[in-house]
Amino acid sequence: MTDVKLALDEVHALVVDTLMRCGCDEENAAAVARVITAAERDGCHSHGLMRLAGYAATLKSGKVNGKARPRVEQIAPAVVRVDGDGGFAPLALETGRQPLVDCARKNGIAALALVDIYHFAALWTEIEPLAEAGLCALACTSYKPAVIPAGGKKALYGTNPIAFGWPRKSGNPVVFDQATSVVARGEVMLAAREGHQMAEGVGVDADGNPTTDPNAILEGSLLAFGGHKGSSLAMMVELLAGGLIGESFSFEAARRDNNDGGPPQGGEFILAMDPGMFGDAEGWLDHSELLFEQIAAQEGTRLPGDRRHANRERNTRDGISLSQAVYDKILEL
Amino acid sequence: MTDVKLALDEVHALVVDTLMRCGCDEENAAAVARVITAAERDGCHSHGLMRLAGYAATLKSGKVNGKARPRVEQIAPAVVRVDGDGGFAPLALETGRQPLVDCARKNGIAALALVDIYHFAALWTEIEPLAEAGLCALACTSYKPAVIPAGGKKALYGTNPIAFGWPRKSGNPVVFDQATSVVARGEVMLAAREGHQMAEGVGVDADGNPTTDPNAILEGSLLAFGGHKGSSLAMMVELLAGGLIGESFSFEAARRDNNDGGPPQGGEFILAMDPGMFGDAEGWLDHSELLFEQIAAQEGTRLPGDRRHANRERNTRDGISLSQAVYDKILEL
Repeated sequence: MTDVKLALDEVHALVVDTLMRCGCDEENAAAVARVITAAERDGCHSHGLMRLAGYAATLKSGKVNGKARPRVEQIAPAVVRVDGDGGFAPLALETGRQPLVDCARKNGIAALALVDIYHFAALWTEIEPLAEAGLCALACTSYKPAVIPAGGKKALYGTNPIAFGWPRKSGNPVVFDQATSVVARGEVMLAAREGHQMAEGVGVDADGNPTTDPNAILEGSLLAFGGHKGSSLAMMVELLAGGLIGESFSFEAARRDNNDGGPPQGGEFILAMDPGMFGDAEGWLDHSELLFEQIAAQEGTRLPGDRRHANRERNTRDGISLSQAVYDKILEL
Repeated sequence: MTDVKLALDEVHALVVDTLMRCGCDEENAAAVARVITAAERDGCHSHGLMRLAGYAATLKSGKVNGKARPRVEQIAPAVVRVDGDGGFAPLALETGRQPLVDCARKNGIAALALVDIYHFAALWTEIEPLAEAGLCALACTSYKPAVIPAGGKKALYGTNPIAFGWPRKSGNPVVFDQATSVVARGEVMLAAREGHQMAEGVGVDADGNPTTDPNAILEGSLLAFGGHKGSSLAMMVELLAGGLIGESFSFEAARRDNNDGGPPQGGEFILAMDPGMFGDAEGWLDHSELLFEQIAAQEGTRLPGDRRHANRERNTRDGISLSQAVYDKILEL
């Protein structure tokens, strides 16, 4: 099969075009295009062009407002809220970013509550700009039930990722972004397509019994990473991105969702802190480098994000390639 | 071996007496006694009277200031800092608690940075009062290197617990408190004493090779829970409880420590949020009960803290029992 080579600005244009044909206005389409292009740029294909069909489906089904006008409101001295107006998350996030940065720089710490959004992107794309602005940041969001609470048999939590970022003296910030499930659902889908088994402890079948068959897991549920500890964290994400900010839990989002293949309506919680206001204004940047040196000094270790940054350099220069079949499918959308 | 029965107020008095004989003033001794008594009350023996010898050792070695006078300072509109004056963590925490609660209620979100403390207690004892005050709270602290970064061979991170709490409409708040290592070091010590093997994946020997021998693990290192995901969280704890607040990373704390058997000097990070200020002031308490109902409805699951609360009821009524040998050792301190 021949591959299609695309420069990153061609990826961006392809996404904008596709979403505008499906009912987005340019502002909303461009915001989504920025996160999809960033994902492709960093080799994070599970959140790249692969997601475009899902975005398109939710526009076509009428679930998502492609012309959303997110509204920012300061609802407490250190809490910023963005009502996403039923649109995709990226524009809501971009709308709330600078108010969050300003709020954190004024108070030392601030939170951003995003409600009425449809979130289908990687969280590291949201954390990185905050860390580049010199802030320590944490984000989490829920989804639809895919993960069973420890000890149980039925999915209740979303894969509920948590992302965290820390600024560096030079170069890219340290950012991790990880699902609270053992593996992401996308990896199971890939295994099913390619016909190989999953490792033990990844998921259970529809009756809650352990299995390594990816198809059975897709009909069943994923397990939280690290047993009850990951399960607790998944619960925490439900509370932060749902209970705290007045948005849906995963099980509520699923009840309302039309299962058009795109994301359900939900919320996101983002925390930002200015380390310069926590007591070590002069030293904190140099100090944290000492920790990163200690990690990097051990053979076999890696700072979170290292792999993405290596991909970024290469893909920014060389562009990305995708199969003709995938490319044709996008053109059909 | 005969057991000694103690009512909870006798546990408290025993700790106060012991610590005052070792050089604490009454205020510091009573604050430590409250967390040790709470641990025994909740059946959390690893953080109960078992720790008293370590507390005593640090007083005797002159490392810890038994007459510490913690100083509170508001260093940013939403950041409270407590300088622990080189004392045990509990009094510093009690000193900072109400300022943190007030700050969170004023701003929606607030952070407490605790520095120059010696932390040897369970974090849930600190989170619970915040959740009882109606706040969502998160705490973390580092220690001395015990956990290897994913892929590496040498311990760099402490067991770095993360605790989180959420208020409930009635009854005890939901609180979890979990090390970012697969198991706590105390469990390995217990296995070594009782002569049984650990499970695979808990730790490595001094050369970084996997082992199930608890003695080899004690000379080696623990692994983070859930592989690289737990390792990322352990790194995050180092950054929050160290880099952010201008306190030591675990590896720095170890370098300075005199290894007297007690905790090293370090810091702690606590976050508090008032859910009533995040956009769902009327509904959040009822709403979160819906999630807890969904969790509890599944056979085999449990809300974090359930086991402790059952112990609490029993031990508050019946007191606790400890072996004559352990009791005699305490009296010797």
